[in-house]
Amino acid sequence: MDVLNLGMVGGGTVGSGVFHALQQNGELLACRIGVRIQVRKVAVKAVDEPRPYPIPRRLLTTDWRQVVEDPEVHMVTELVGGTTVARQIVETALRLGKPVITANKALLSAHGPELFRKAERHGTNLYFEASVCGGIPIIKALREGFVGNRIRALYGIVNGTCNYILTRMARDRAGFDAVLKEAQREGYAETPPDLDIDGHDAQHKTGILASLAHGIWIPPSKIRVEGIRSVSPLDLEFASQLGYTIKLLGIVKELGSADATDGETPLQVSVYPALIPSRHVLAGVQGVFNAVFVRGDVVGETLFYGQGAGKDATASAVLSDLADAALDLRFGSPRRRPAFVRQPNRVRVVPMDEVVSRSFVRLSVVDRPGVLARIAAVFGQAGIGIASVIQPEGHTGEIVPLILMLHEAPDGAVRRALGRIGRLPVVKAPPVRFRVESLD
Amino acid sequence: MDVLNLGMVGGGTVGSGVFHALQQNGELLACRIGVRIQVRKVAVKAVDEPRPYPIPRRLLTTDWRQVVEDPEVHMVTELVGGTTVARQIVETALRLGKPVITANKALLSAHGPELFRKAERHGTNLYFEASVCGGIPIIKALREGFVGNRIRALYGIVNGTCNYILTRMARDRAGFDAVLKEAQREGYAETPPDLDIDGHDAQHKTGILASLAHGIWIPPSKIRVEGIRSVSPLDLEFASQLGYTIKLLGIVKELGSADATDGETPLQVSVYPALIPSRHVLAGVQGVFNAVFVRGDVVGETLFYGQGAGKDATASAVLSDLADAALDLRFGSPRRRPAFVRQPNRVRVVPMDEVVSRSFVRLSVVDRPGVLARIAAVFGQAGIGIASVIQPEGHTGEIVPLILMLHEAPDGAVRRALGRIGRLPVVKAPPVRFRVESLD
Repeated sequence: MDVLNLGMVGGGTVGSGVFHALQQNGELLACRIGVRIQVRKVAVKAVDEPRPYPIPRRLLTTDWRQVVEDPEVHMVTELVGGTTVARQIVETALRLGKPVITANKALLSAHGPELFRKAERHGTNLYFEASVCGGIPIIKALREGFVGNRIRALYGIVNGTCNYILTRMARDRAGFDAVLKEAQREGYAETPPDLDIDGHDAQHKTGILASLAHGIWIPPSKIRVEGIRSVSPLDLEFASQLGYTIKLLGIVKELGSADATDGETPLQVSVYPALIPSRHVLAGVQGVFNAVFVRGDVVGETLFYGQGAGKDATASAVLSDLADAALDLRFGSPRRRPAFVRQPNRVRVVPMDEVVSRSFVRLSVVDRPGVLARIAAVFGQAGIGIASVIQPEGHTGEIVPLILMLHEAPDGAVRRALGRIGRLPVVKAPPVRFRVESLD
Repeated sequence: MDVLNLGMVGGGTVGSGVFHALQQNGELLACRIGVRIQVRKVAVKAVDEPRPYPIPRRLLTTDWRQVVEDPEVHMVTELVGGTTVARQIVETALRLGKPVITANKALLSAHGPELFRKAERHGTNLYFEASVCGGIPIIKALREGFVGNRIRALYGIVNGTCNYILTRMARDRAGFDAVLKEAQREGYAETPPDLDIDGHDAQHKTGILASLAHGIWIPPSKIRVEGIRSVSPLDLEFASQLGYTIKLLGIVKELGSADATDGETPLQVSVYPALIPSRHVLAGVQGVFNAVFVRGDVVGETLFYGQGAGKDATASAVLSDLADAALDLRFGSPRRRPAFVRQPNRVRVVPMDEVVSRSFVRLSVVDRPGVLARIAAVFGQAGIGIASVIQPEGHTGEIVPLILMLHEAPDGAVRRALGRIGRLPVVKAPPVRFRVESLD
């Protein structure tokens, strides 16, 4: 049986997870693909750093160049994270014509196109299944399973930390700060938590999925992102009464057909907390689990569900890429499925202000007749229809909540109207607004 | 760009769906994989038969040999169904060294190993993503996405007709016969419906998934199958009160570790309606949708959801296989991922009588003191523990329902005890029993 030598850079949580999975199932993997993958060297930050699974000392080095540049190393995993040294590692390996397997979504977000070009120039490839939703083979599904589909819409719960927090808030009626602290204690949230809860992690992943689905590279700067700090237990409760659940969604959605004049299809790419129907299969995704709902023009509606992160789920994705890379080397077809392929269908990312959606609005208003009329007047002037109003019972005092469901309206118009409403003297706190996604 | 000629055998529902999808997205597909797939000829039963999508007359022939044996045809789709002519078609193409893409689960169930050997002998390959859950790339997920995993358990809702009937029965509290008739009127069930509702379609699919996951070919004869005819609205109602939903499941489950003496891992492979926890993500799969829940030893819990059948969902799977077959031809690696690979881990399919599970039992008993004692005595003698008993209110008359939840017990013991209970004079109808799957 052919043997291929793997050089690993990064032996921390994910790296040691990959090493462990290869020890555990390497024989099975070899039998399934007809190639044995042998770990030759592992570059780590410090030989004695603590790691979830042990790696024999004789394999360890602290010099990544010793791994990447070793002529006996046929392929390289980059599992160090970050965008500086990681970039050097990946570029060095590609320049040597060695395929690279990475889980680094931040690196892809920042430097994807350069890395893809580098891989092409040196006749090798870059594999990154583990960069988005480790336990869900979503990149393989988009690129291979749905290769015959136009992806009409994709909605992803792609950040486990946010989904854990929102699930706990909804279940326990607990506040954001309290749940976040608990999540940090339990290891479900980082300290500081900003990358997750402000939506940037989801933004990176959504950008990668959008780019693969539509064949143009969509950088983070084109993706509107809003995190979950603004979600309160009140919002979850009122949403639930209305038949909705609030989830942080990565959204990639065609907004219509190709424009008759320029031939471009308008596309929404964004990340924000949204109300989705509670009976929808996506609403049932609880805790740290991830899920991606995909609508293809041929396949119809599909959903993929699994653990998004964690050393083992991510290791599973790395092993899948290792198998593909090994087969590509074995059969001399390293560019069989290039890391990224531009597509002929032209899409245009629509500025968020132009995106039309329904809205859930929660206002804190003084409890006095005539208040609703003043608020309704502002929406009326902006041409925004109100679908329903709820003045929930059981709230007494000077300030009470007022919930409005708005009809479809352009995002910019809603934003401006809420700005004006927030300045009304009868409104006592900044308006809270979430978009409503019917997922139809 | 390379061009490959496709010969299609079968131009009915699925065949014309594939033709249509290639017309619609052929350009996009070509761009994504770097190969253009051109339909050269389509063999049909009758040129003028009605089909959901039109196929130009100049491509049609009624002689499949003209398609398969055409030296300009590089690859073949077999979309005629059945196991006689279909077998000839597939074997002829393989003998000519042409890769075959099929959606034919019955053919694979009956003759899989011979066809795999034939493909190997002639240096070509057989692709069958469309044979199981068309809209779900589950075969690719098992073979590629989870290539680094041992599949500890797999639970599939793999028959849309049964899931539609059970969903409607639960929602509308309607009887099996009435819902089946309606499903037939609406085109969700065939006439006769036996292949679906007696579980044989699910048996074929479960066998294919089990075989791929465990690397031994598991023929239908080794798979215990029970259909959904025995499910009544009463069972769905009582199950629901207990926090369960009834689904027809294909089950592939390791029952323990490898045996110390013979090294074989005991494996359950079966199809039956089972109670699953209503809060489980699998319980939320409604109507004609399919879903497969997979637990891998590395990846953890995952779920794949989509349409199981229908011309378009199935076409999407065929296009995915066509892309793989085209790339394999383009890069001269037709055996890159053989249709079936034997694995070193040895498994032994356990006879159903030895499988241990919990049970839900519904009896129709005379409403008289002492009845429960007589029933409990039979279970007690058999060493089967009773977890709970419900004598639901609101049932009056001579005969009333009695629900028992049984502790874990071997299937054979439960079967024999129920046989004895069914012969008690106080029991007035054959006992109804469903297994309870916690999916843990």
